[in-house]
Amino acid sequence: MTSFGDTKLRNLGDYFATGSVADRPALSSTMAALRHFLARAPASFARHFAAGQPITCKAAVARGVNDIRVEEVTVAPPGPREVRLKVHSNALCHTDIYTLSGQDPEGLFPSILGHEAGTVVESVGEGVTGLKPGDKVIPCYTPQCGEPDCIFCFPPRGKRTNLCPKIRGTQGSGVMPDGTSRFTDAEGKEIKHFMGCSTFSEYTVVADISCAKVSDTAPLDVCSLLGCGVSTGLGAAWNTLNVEGGSSVAVFGLGAVGLSVIQGAKMRGAARIFAIDMNPKKFEMAKDLGATDCVNPKDYDKPIQQVIVGMTKWGVDYTFDCTGNVEVMRAALECAHRGWGESCVIGVAGAGKEISTRPFQLVTGRKWTGTAFGGFKGRSEVPPLIDDYEAGRLKLDHYITHRFQGVEGNLKAIEALHSGDCLRAVVTY
Amino acid sequence: MTSFGDTKLRNLGDYFATGSVADRPALSSTMAALRHFLARAPASFARHFAAGQPITCKAAVARGVNDIRVEEVTVAPPGPREVRLKVHSNALCHTDIYTLSGQDPEGLFPSILGHEAGTVVESVGEGVTGLKPGDKVIPCYTPQCGEPDCIFCFPPRGKRTNLCPKIRGTQGSGVMPDGTSRFTDAEGKEIKHFMGCSTFSEYTVVADISCAKVSDTAPLDVCSLLGCGVSTGLGAAWNTLNVEGGSSVAVFGLGAVGLSVIQGAKMRGAARIFAIDMNPKKFEMAKDLGATDCVNPKDYDKPIQQVIVGMTKWGVDYTFDCTGNVEVMRAALECAHRGWGESCVIGVAGAGKEISTRPFQLVTGRKWTGTAFGGFKGRSEVPPLIDDYEAGRLKLDHYITHRFQGVEGNLKAIEALHSGDCLRAVVTY
Repeated sequence: MTSFGDTKLRNLGDYFATGSVADRPALSSTMAALRHFLARAPASFARHFAAGQPITCKAAVARGVNDIRVEEVTVAPPGPREVRLKVHSNALCHTDIYTLSGQDPEGLFPSILGHEAGTVVESVGEGVTGLKPGDKVIPCYTPQCGEPDCIFCFPPRGKRTNLCPKIRGTQGSGVMPDGTSRFTDAEGKEIKHFMGCSTFSEYTVVADISCAKVSDTAPLDVCSLLGCGVSTGLGAAWNTLNVEGGSSVAVFGLGAVGLSVIQGAKMRGAARIFAIDMNPKKFEMAKDLGATDCVNPKDYDKPIQQVIVGMTKWGVDYTFDCTGNVEVMRAALECAHRGWGESCVIGVAGAGKEISTRPFQLVTGRKWTGTAFGGFKGRSEVPPLIDDYEAGRLKLDHYITHRFQGVEGNLKAIEALHSGDCLRAVVTY
Repeated sequence: MTSFGDTKLRNLGDYFATGSVADRPALSSTMAALRHFLARAPASFARHFAAGQPITCKAAVARGVNDIRVEEVTVAPPGPREVRLKVHSNALCHTDIYTLSGQDPEGLFPSILGHEAGTVVESVGEGVTGLKPGDKVIPCYTPQCGEPDCIFCFPPRGKRTNLCPKIRGTQGSGVMPDGTSRFTDAEGKEIKHFMGCSTFSEYTVVADISCAKVSDTAPLDVCSLLGCGVSTGLGAAWNTLNVEGGSSVAVFGLGAVGLSVIQGAKMRGAARIFAIDMNPKKFEMAKDLGATDCVNPKDYDKPIQQVIVGMTKWGVDYTFDCTGNVEVMRAALECAHRGWGESCVIGVAGAGKEISTRPFQLVTGRKWTGTAFGGFKGRSEVPPLIDDYEAGRLKLDHYITHRFQGVEGNLKAIEALHSGDCLRAVVTY
């Protein structure tokens, strides 16, 4: 396999959807000539050509626990109801690191991680409707099949959920809905997909029902924020617990998710917002976004739930765990308001970890629930968030604290996210 | 102290509110003469006389763990905002047995248990409005102060709860709101109150805010059912989880609480109702009340939550634990419907017991909550249940499976409830 100069192709712009065809020895000289031609060809022709052909490009491949390497991979063309995307920007999420670290019991290796991205459609497979090359897309790890008989897309009797299970089994197994992967490494060996997205790659293939098509003017770096963390926080406040004006809110953990819960709660008019973190550096932005009380558990010698209840009379209307720590989940529940307080688990817990509490906490009127992707249905409810951003109604830029270039930048992003002062490190390929 | 013949007084009828004055040695002969006179006096005069005076009567006193004795006790007159009640009927609830057994970490001895009763007002203390001697009352362990500044009686922003905390501290300590008891034993030693009710006594004193005044025609034996268990089950379905027509329901534990959940769910139009118990004798009435599927966990070699999920596709919309067993509480949560299933803890767990689950169960859309007294506000929401009963809209007679007479009957009721074929043993004094 050879590396090749597709830099120029990429420089043609975000909408220029292309890549390198699979490099097979027998075809190499012909292909090189073709590539040379294509580099100078009009975008539409290049797109037309790449469609249906494998693309060789760079990706950060997770080979094992904490072993991630930038490699050349081959991305097969999209199958039926699949879409091949050129990834423009990727925002690193803790869930990527969680899986890379080996804590995720369902984590698979080798795989291409990454699931927060702004992308452009390169080509579409058979049967795909509503998406065409050049469309801007946020790949969503929660799909939305939209089929009339899907009780999760269209829940009965006023229920609400975004947990469309259409491709759940295969997505969890790191493959496309037909049970196979679109990624192979330089030796032709299969690489697994991740969360139905795999955006640590210059190109990826996702199911069409995972594609949230956003406006043509959407900035793709900002789009990447909405693929998981920030949407999750906003949606936890808006969709899952439905925070209302005048209420009180407590947010445990002030990463991008926690801060977006604060932002969402403030936008709903919450009157008092407790921001809780052991890193006081997080408090400034929490305040900027609407926190009224910043609390560091290290400053107290009693359980944090007692501290928060003590700062109120009967607890807090809505509480959110944004840490993944099961003890914090318990604390969040136990400082929820007697009689009607609701607590939402957002963080992803380590393998085998369980949450516990005394049933008395529930009998006295608290509700314990959780959220995945903030309850947003990807295809119908994420695009309006970008519209809100573009119209100035939703501020998102502050979540981008670090920027890196190229697929290699994902490795730097991992370092940055570990540093503690990073909300989102956006890597532009 | 002497025992005395107040049988005749009681025979004057339910509305005849009276009893025996405290018997002090120095006054005994005078009092005996007075008693003789009163036994023949018009009811109004007897009431007038007893008001303001202690009453000596029979009560079943819990002296210690599983040590309950029928004794003569003295019931002081009601203090300000207190009401003295003549107990007509008492329905034994598992919570009484739970406390008697010593499992309740907050259980106090000696005390007078009992908290499901049909009673008549004997006299009222200073400042009591809206209640007069002769009124029929269901004492409620959950009070309703109704003061405009009580955020539990009048929750903000559309919240709902019945957990008025007005007398919570003293009630939990076994005393009246002023911090003292109205019960003394033959040696003049204090006996504690229980759950603000203490209806294992011919007379009791409760806070006025604990009194649900029902219609003058209400049958007091049926009233006793609504003081706790049956109201709790109906309310868990109606108020707490708000079961709607067409939904599916699973009920774990088919005592009076579980059966009343089934009844409430059926009245709401639930389409499928799973009734789960290890005693198949319970299934007949469960079916009569609306259960569509009766399941005995002993018939399966896998966890019951897997059995129930297997009988559906994605679980059950609403699930209820009516056992107090924390493992069953977990099972009930884990068979709730993916995406929107809600599970309600009703049973009272043993001291120190905790509920646990994987947070994934919540992240995938389940809600875990609980109920106390089915969410009913005692004074405003229990009386309409009796109206419904009298109008034939709410069937309740089937819960009375055993009947006993006299305070001693409470001991027989305890045996009956242990037997496994008893729903409610109603004891009429």
